[in-house]
Amino acid sequence: MAGASGYAGGELLRLLLAHPDVEIGTLTAGGNAGTRLGELQPHLLPLADRVLAETTADTLAGHDVVFLALPHGHSAAIAAELGDDTLVVDCGADHRLADSDAWDRWYGGEHAGHWPYGLPELPGGRDALAGTKRVAVPGCYPTVSSLALVPALVGGLVEPEVVITAVTGTSGAGKSLKPHLLGAEVMGSLSAYGVGGVHRHTPEIMQNLSAACGGPVSVSFTPVLAPLPRGILASCSAPVAGDVAGAAEAVREAYEKAYADEPFVHLLPAGQWPTTGAVLGSNVVALQVAVDADARRVVVVGAVDNLAKGTAGAAVQCMNIALGLPETAGLPLTGVAP
Amino acid sequence: MAGASGYAGGELLRLLLAHPDVEIGTLTAGGNAGTRLGELQPHLLPLADRVLAETTADTLAGHDVVFLALPHGHSAAIAAELGDDTLVVDCGADHRLADSDAWDRWYGGEHAGHWPYGLPELPGGRDALAGTKRVAVPGCYPTVSSLALVPALVGGLVEPEVVITAVTGTSGAGKSLKPHLLGAEVMGSLSAYGVGGVHRHTPEIMQNLSAACGGPVSVSFTPVLAPLPRGILASCSAPVAGDVAGAAEAVREAYEKAYADEPFVHLLPAGQWPTTGAVLGSNVVALQVAVDADARRVVVVGAVDNLAKGTAGAAVQCMNIALGLPETAGLPLTGVAP
Amino acid sequence: MAGASGYAGGELLRLLLAHPDVEIGTLTAGGNAGTRLGELQPHLLPLADRVLAETTADTLAGHDVVFLALPHGHSAAIAAELGDDTLVVDCGADHRLADSDAWDRWYGGEHAGHWPYGLPELPGGRDALAGTKRVAVPGCYPTVSSLALVPALVGGLVEPEVVITAVTGTSGAGKSLKPHLLGAEVMGSLSAYGVGGVHRHTPEIMQNLSAACGGPVSVSFTPVLAPLPRGILASCSAPVAGDVAGAAEAVREAYEKAYADEPFVHLLPAGQWPTTGAVLGSNVVALQVAVDADARRVVVVGAVDNLAKGTAGAAVQCMNIALGLPETAGLPLTGVAP
Amino acid sequence: MAGASGYAGGELLRLLLAHPDVEIGTLTAGGNAGTRLGELQPHLLPLADRVLAETTADTLAGHDVVFLALPHGHSAAIAAELGDDTLVVDCGADHRLADSDAWDRWYGGEHAGHWPYGLPELPGGRDALAGTKRVAVPGCYPTVSSLALVPALVGGLVEPEVVITAVTGTSGAGKSLKPHLLGAEVMGSLSAYGVGGVHRHTPEIMQNLSAACGGPVSVSFTPVLAPLPRGILASCSAPVAGDVAGAAEAVREAYEKAYADEPFVHLLPAGQWPTTGAVLGSNVVALQVAVDADARRVVVVGAVDNLAKGTAGAAVQCMNIALGLPETAGLPLTGVAP
Repeated sequence: MAGASGYAGGELLRLLLAHPDVEIGTLTAGGNAGTRLGELQPHLLPLADRVLAETTADTLAGHDVVFLALPHGHSAAIAAELGDDTLVVDCGADHRLADSDAWDRWYGGEHAGHWPYGLPELPGGRDALAGTKRVAVPGCYPTVSSLALVPALVGGLVEPEVVITAVTGTSGAGKSLKPHLLGAEVMGSLSAYGVGGVHRHTPEIMQNLSAACGGPVSVSFTPVLAPLPRGILASCSAPVAGDVAGAAEAVREAYEKAYADEPFVHLLPAGQWPTTGAVLGSNVVALQVAVDADARRVVVVGAVDNLAKGTAGAAVQCMNIALGLPETAGLPLTGVAP
Repeated sequence: MAGASGYAGGELLRLLLAHPDVEIGTLTAGGNAGTRLGELQPHLLPLADRVLAETTADTLAGHDVVFLALPHGHSAAIAAELGDDTLVVDCGADHRLADSDAWDRWYGGEHAGHWPYGLPELPGGRDALAGTKRVAVPGCYPTVSSLALVPALVGGLVEPEVVITAVTGTSGAGKSLKPHLLGAEVMGSLSAYGVGGVHRHTPEIMQNLSAACGGPVSVSFTPVLAPLPRGILASCSAPVAGDVAGAAEAVREAYEKAYADEPFVHLLPAGQWPTTGAVLGSNVVALQVAVDADARRVVVVGAVDNLAKGTAGAAVQCMNIALGLPETAGLPLTGVAP
Repeated sequence: MAGASGYAGGELLRLLLAHPDVEIGTLTAGGNAGTRLGELQPHLLPLADRVLAETTADTLAGHDVVFLALPHGHSAAIAAELGDDTLVVDCGADHRLADSDAWDRWYGGEHAGHWPYGLPELPGGRDALAGTKRVAVPGCYPTVSSLALVPALVGGLVEPEVVITAVTGTSGAGKSLKPHLLGAEVMGSLSAYGVGGVHRHTPEIMQNLSAACGGPVSVSFTPVLAPLPRGILASCSAPVAGDVAGAAEAVREAYEKAYADEPFVHLLPAGQWPTTGAVLGSNVVALQVAVDADARRVVVVGAVDNLAKGTAGAAVQCMNIALGLPETAGLPLTGVAP
Repeated sequence: MAGASGYAGGELLRLLLAHPDVEIGTLTAGGNAGTRLGELQPHLLPLADRVLAETTADTLAGHDVVFLALPHGHSAAIAAELGDDTLVVDCGADHRLADSDAWDRWYGGEHAGHWPYGLPELPGGRDALAGTKRVAVPGCYPTVSSLALVPALVGGLVEPEVVITAVTGTSGAGKSLKPHLLGAEVMGSLSAYGVGGVHRHTPEIMQNLSAACGGPVSVSFTPVLAPLPRGILASCSAPVAGDVAGAAEAVREAYEKAYADEPFVHLLPAGQWPTTGAVLGSNVVALQVAVDADARRVVVVGAVDNLAKGTAGAAVQCMNIALGLPETAGLPLTGVAP
């Protein structure tokens, strides 16, 4: 596994340690190569004495599955050197976008291409992953936003003009040494960033929503940084399409139907709203829907653990599907609360 | 001052202690009458030995100014008994809404009527307060949301269909003993509540926005509870009216013009986004604007300290205006950070 | 299981859901009887539709194991009605203290007697639990304090006069509706409480330490409340006995030897200090030792999750021992971080 | 003022902005020279447009007072170039220790010498500061620890062997880009560091306590990092000297007497324990004392805001004394809570 010293890598290892069908092989890192994992990820006690190798195609060779938890732009080169028999699960952004122009605009650099997209709960999502040898794990915001909005869009219940404000814990920014991520800055403060459509997850959300409803969807996306380590709460809305009378029932029905058989998407009973605390450490997205008759909008709130179902849990879930294992193997349904 | 044991009351006292023209008179409370203030508000050291009186018209009589920081529904009766010579500043909701039907629907019980509304930065707001003997202090969400949206609406730069997601610290809920406000529940979790237009601040926001632009404005409002004691970050947006080309410049200009002379509304330099940490303890609302050309929306983010400019600071500011004191007297421009 | 609506009860259910040999039976509560568990413990998704029964001997009858997670003083009566064939694991304090006088002084009310004490890592601790039908789960502070100090005391390496300052998250106080436990009070503040030897865990620590070293041990214990949901960090020290030269090596050796074979007590490599984040959600106590040659004191720092190894994890561990299951069954060695 | 971009510098500016007798002159920084202060300290709105100069003796020349808020080791060279007519207040450690050997052992590098020590509440402390042109502002831990312990030591009420565990917010570590200070690492976790007498504040505490009681005092000091931006809660204890009967009264009396006339040291009423929240942003140290008769120890708990009375407030207080201004000018007695 490449990127074992970061937050996504650490969460992957936590989940894989509990997976009944997985044996953990080589662990690699960039600047932290040569270090005991126990120094960097002291919560992974059973792996404390593992020493990190350099991230190269050589050190990663010879595994059935390779997880890449690398900064954006580093996955493609490594993946190209790993054989076609190896299942490569990329937690980075390199292979998420189908549209090269979108890649150019939001990321820049050479576009590495598009891999099967790791959100099985999207229409047709599971089929695209069965038996694949390459998986692009979705971004954390796109995961919760897409699951929150797709049933309403697919059902034609809302206009394709969505507004999303998503509040996130700070681990989503990774273990980056930036002043605004220091504890003293973060605690006791809320801050907006990437406002006005400039956040890199915007085109990915657009891609998912447009594919689902077969037409262009405009997306206004505002991320907010809040003082907690993990969790995203996304407040998503769109104008009711057609008559507002009966919309509430139609919307609820659409979501119940869409997710009735999904093990990891949980539509809460009417009146109960999602909290990120309840899904902390679990692979679950919790949703609730409402129709604001005065404002004529459908409002969907979704909660997810950005590191679990938002990244590492999704990676494991996709591995399970790709390898034909039980989809829920090794993936917690219970959160760690309080 | 009535309600000295709560969060709004405590913040009022903190500000009034630093006010050059104020002498603090009788302090009253409900269930906490008879208690030393030092036990309830240990941060107000200079008032530690004050003992709280019962909240009655008698104990409050004989002051030039009476601040009411009471639960909703308790202000009207007290206010009615205080003479017309007394300036009464009500931090509760009782006298905020002009429309009795809105009062019935969102609060219920008898409508106490409508007092001059304490948001001087609204068009005409300052005039309504000069010399008044009654002030209805705005709610915390309406303060930041209205200041964030009015210039765009007044200038006809957006369609009158606004979407607001506002993230708040937990002091906004008061010192209420409810399970979901316990520290262990709040820390490490984000939660939505009052979704779908049911939060009581919705009609107040609508009232402010409609009055400002002279026509109906639809408001979709979602509050989110985050793990911090104080602060609201409001993400507000509305569709661009007319051509999106040139909208960014027009919007920025409108906000610069609207708030150029306002001591307590600060439009940040382009590229810098508001944080609640920077306004903690201050009477300042910090704003930033953007136009998302793809989504064709104007996005405004506002930060405020819900207890300061969001409640107690506004109350003091209104007192200053009503009494003809310098408007900024006793009101901090600097936040307490980190 | 009795007390399913509280924090200890919730953590027990989280762990038991992952236990390979356990089927979860009746769940009971006091005031929350009749409520869906999903409303009270939304993180326990697989049990969301369970409805809580009343806590009575009848509803609890017919199970092989009964866990009691009740307020202090409520366990004895229930336990008396459960048959001798039922394994009763009491997470409350009722059966922890052997000394009736200590019970009278610190708790008061009738002393329910003394059950086998659920800290298998103490000298002789495991033997006392094998095959037992009654277990008194230790308090959270005594768990980490005792494990931190016993090897030094047993080895005669320190004088029997220990000083403990233990910092705790707020879930240790339970889901109690008290003003000082509100999120707004807790976040951004540290507070001392129960200072001067008055905390009820003091006699329990004394009992453990005195039993281990076969003589009286004086204990100065100060708990501190900090803004986090879970975790205790205990700073423990005692005067070096005898010569300070060589003490550092002797102390390290004593701890290495004491815990070499313990699956859940982890002495960190020299130079690395414990954090509660690394043991969050796990059944592990992390320790580090030092000798301060200037002050002539041995200092031991221990970290534990108060709800996991500090309560619910210990309960499951004791059940495993009492029933002859593998001691580590169902108990996480990995923490949830960040 | 030198070091305007750090936490201590920011707090100094916040306090100085409210000081009636101060005009803020040149602001300097190291790596941040050339930047608008508004980008670095957005809470200091009235100074937002100030641009930081380089920290040199030239840019700092020509002021009546120069505050140095620089990393350790940087003050001496600058101070040497500032004239003897300039009051230089050093918030760094360079001039705190009188003993060159202690400097060598704990800091290393050339010892810059010893300036009048800025803790006026120590015996003789105020006299040493009157009229001085050089002030060494104490460390944050030594401030609260010394004030907590000196009366008991001076009165001979305890043995000179003290144990201190002090829990701190993360701003004490400065705006340093270190992984363990990232928000995601800090929130939800407690960690020990500098255990076993190795923290650099140990010799400073020893110096203060030994000077006060005229003999050697052994100090066992353990700092703990907790998830809050500001605040130190110090749990301090020492063995009762002589008979434990009557010790409680004698101790309380000693503290009442010692601090009766101190504006910034507040002994709480019996039964109320300090919280850092109550002193946040203020220049107050809150204390409470107890005698643990069983353990035969005096326990003193102290709370301070590490940036305010712990650093910047002390600096302003010392300036007031040195210049003959009212000692309390510009210094808040009220905290910002919740």
